Amino acid sequence: MQKRIIKIKNASISEAASVVGKHEALGPLGACFDVCDTTDTFGADTWEKAESAMQKKAFNKLVDKLDTIPQSFGAMFAGDLQNQCVGSSYGLMEFDVPYFGLYGACSTCAEGLMLAALGVSAGYFERAAAVTSSHYLAAERQYRSPIEYGAQRSPTAQWTVTGAAAFSVERKGAVAITEAIPGIVVEKGINDASNMGAAMAPAAADTIIAYFKESGLSPRDFDLILTGDLGYEGGSILCELLLCENLDIRERYNDCGVLIYDRIRQDKHAGGSGCGCSAVVLASHILQKLRVGKLKNVLFMGTGAMMSPSSIQQGLAIPAVGHMIRLEHVGV
Amino acid sequence: MQKRIIKIKNASISEAASVVGKHEALGPLGACFDVCDTTDTFGADTWEKAESAMQKKAFNKLVDKLDTIPQSFGAMFAGDLQNQCVGSSYGLMEFDVPYFGLYGACSTCAEGLMLAALGVSAGYFERAAAVTSSHYLAAERQYRSPIEYGAQRSPTAQWTVTGAAAFSVERKGAVAITEAIPGIVVEKGINDASNMGAAMAPAAADTIIAYFKESGLSPRDFDLILTGDLGYEGGSILCELLLCENLDIRERYNDCGVLIYDRIRQDKHAGGSGCGCSAVVLASHILQKLRVGKLKNVLFMGTGAMMSPSSIQQGLAIPAVGHMIRLEHVGV
Repeated sequence: MQKRIIKIKNASISEAASVVGKHEALGPLGACFDVCDTTDTFGADTWEKAESAMQKKAFNKLVDKLDTIPQSFGAMFAGDLQNQCVGSSYGLMEFDVPYFGLYGACSTCAEGLMLAALGVSAGYFERAAAVTSSHYLAAERQYRSPIEYGAQRSPTAQWTVTGAAAFSVERKGAVAITEAIPGIVVEKGINDASNMGAAMAPAAADTIIAYFKESGLSPRDFDLILTGDLGYEGGSILCELLLCENLDIRERYNDCGVLIYDRIRQDKHAGGSGCGCSAVVLASHILQKLRVGKLKNVLFMGTGAMMSPSSIQQGLAIPAVGHMIRLEHVGV
Repeated sequence: MQKRIIKIKNASISEAASVVGKHEALGPLGACFDVCDTTDTFGADTWEKAESAMQKKAFNKLVDKLDTIPQSFGAMFAGDLQNQCVGSSYGLMEFDVPYFGLYGACSTCAEGLMLAALGVSAGYFERAAAVTSSHYLAAERQYRSPIEYGAQRSPTAQWTVTGAAAFSVERKGAVAITEAIPGIVVEKGINDASNMGAAMAPAAADTIIAYFKESGLSPRDFDLILTGDLGYEGGSILCELLLCENLDIRERYNDCGVLIYDRIRQDKHAGGSGCGCSAVVLASHILQKLRVGKLKNVLFMGTGAMMSPSSIQQGLAIPAVGHMIRLEHVGV
């Protein structure tokens, strides 16, 4: 049987850029993001086009920070939540870089970083990008209903982050990607489309349990075990599921959907989610800490709920996947 | 500047399985496919679930042919045309294999084979799968309108293949994947959603031109240059675009969407398309010829139109991508 953990040599996140909307800018991490547009439009005339504009802005910002040209990238791994992932295909189409389209729902950031790291480590690419985004207003009208309809949000509902991030992965950099643990699709009977956290927590638990079993490490070997978008509800279910397996991660655990909004002041119910959630939090706040060594050893996981509005209407439960990478501070 | 061609060592298609519906079974390649259900339902009560059932059947058939267990696969790379790629996530969720979701529209088969080959060649996986599907009736109601509405098809419209295929990629096998040329997203102003061939041909041309320029080879060095789903319209545009660049592939060129249906007897207008088109033709007819050496050296490309119904409604043109791999007969 093949092992779940893939060891990776010579792959690092060399740079990252984050672009966010109004609610994210007003949150506790607001000052950490590179670009913000408080209109959420990013100069576009539809929310879907706004999401593409965000991705374009994020990738351009990344290219600027690296002081390079887009064609220095051998590949980009990109995806988003829009039907047919058009946020990415339209957002990135002018860059003349080989394009691998991904669909991992909210796990896309972790999936893209993983594939970029595997490709760079093997020498296929000198430099590869992982790009992803989500937009609250595009996601609401696609998955639920346009917000103008005034539907009431349930307490377990999460708030799709309006944000995009772009990462560059190269052989050298201050933050190494040293392990990849790709997720298995897990479905435990949750069919409440307003409770993504509950649907995704079992997939997150599956990957984390496999990791600690195979590595022989313990949660205390890490400064931080960070999920991307489980929010308050999913995060607490995850910790409970792991406790049943005698794995206590609570001392080290946090979630990007918990970090990105102020729970009292902003009232986003169960916290943030969406492809952009884990992406912008990692690209800003977390990466900065890893770069300077305030964090040295981090497990980062993206979790994706792999259903569609049609599959929910047809009565199917929600399958999910949790992709995890290990990030280590290596200095420069 | 990074080169477009990635050389691959020690990665082969070791086995493949194909599952099709009625129209494909009645076509000229009907006898080549492993499984056929002339009801197109595959035992499911919706077309969307039928597509998942096809993927499941294709992967199970692959596992049977290899006389192995699903867990012998280190990863599966999978995707389809349904919103949020639920054809794949539901179809493959019971197999306990690490899952990388892809969205490459009709290029998904080539994208998946490419990533599986890169992962196996680098030693990340002993064995990886590439799985994809499309279903005519699920695609019609999602992208256009349910066929019960009786909308008339335009002459340039292609017919989405009802089919799924699963491939296993391992270090050894009779058909080596020796090169990968990932595609760049290209958009040339085509906004007719009933003419996917015209939208995808420029992306196919971009990849083919890059390949012959960089490799120094000529079309005559290959037995076959096979696109996945350009059909009659897109295929002829591709050949014309290449002639403008003094590249004549016509002697060696064919398209899976042309091969799969009988033009006169079946009247599928501009030919077949969909993720399943290139997948089932490669997995059956073409792979068999490569295995026994009747074909020795083949360029295989999947082309994907990366738009969505929303992006078309919002007046955007159709971006596309063409991923290409080189397949060589190496005997056993």
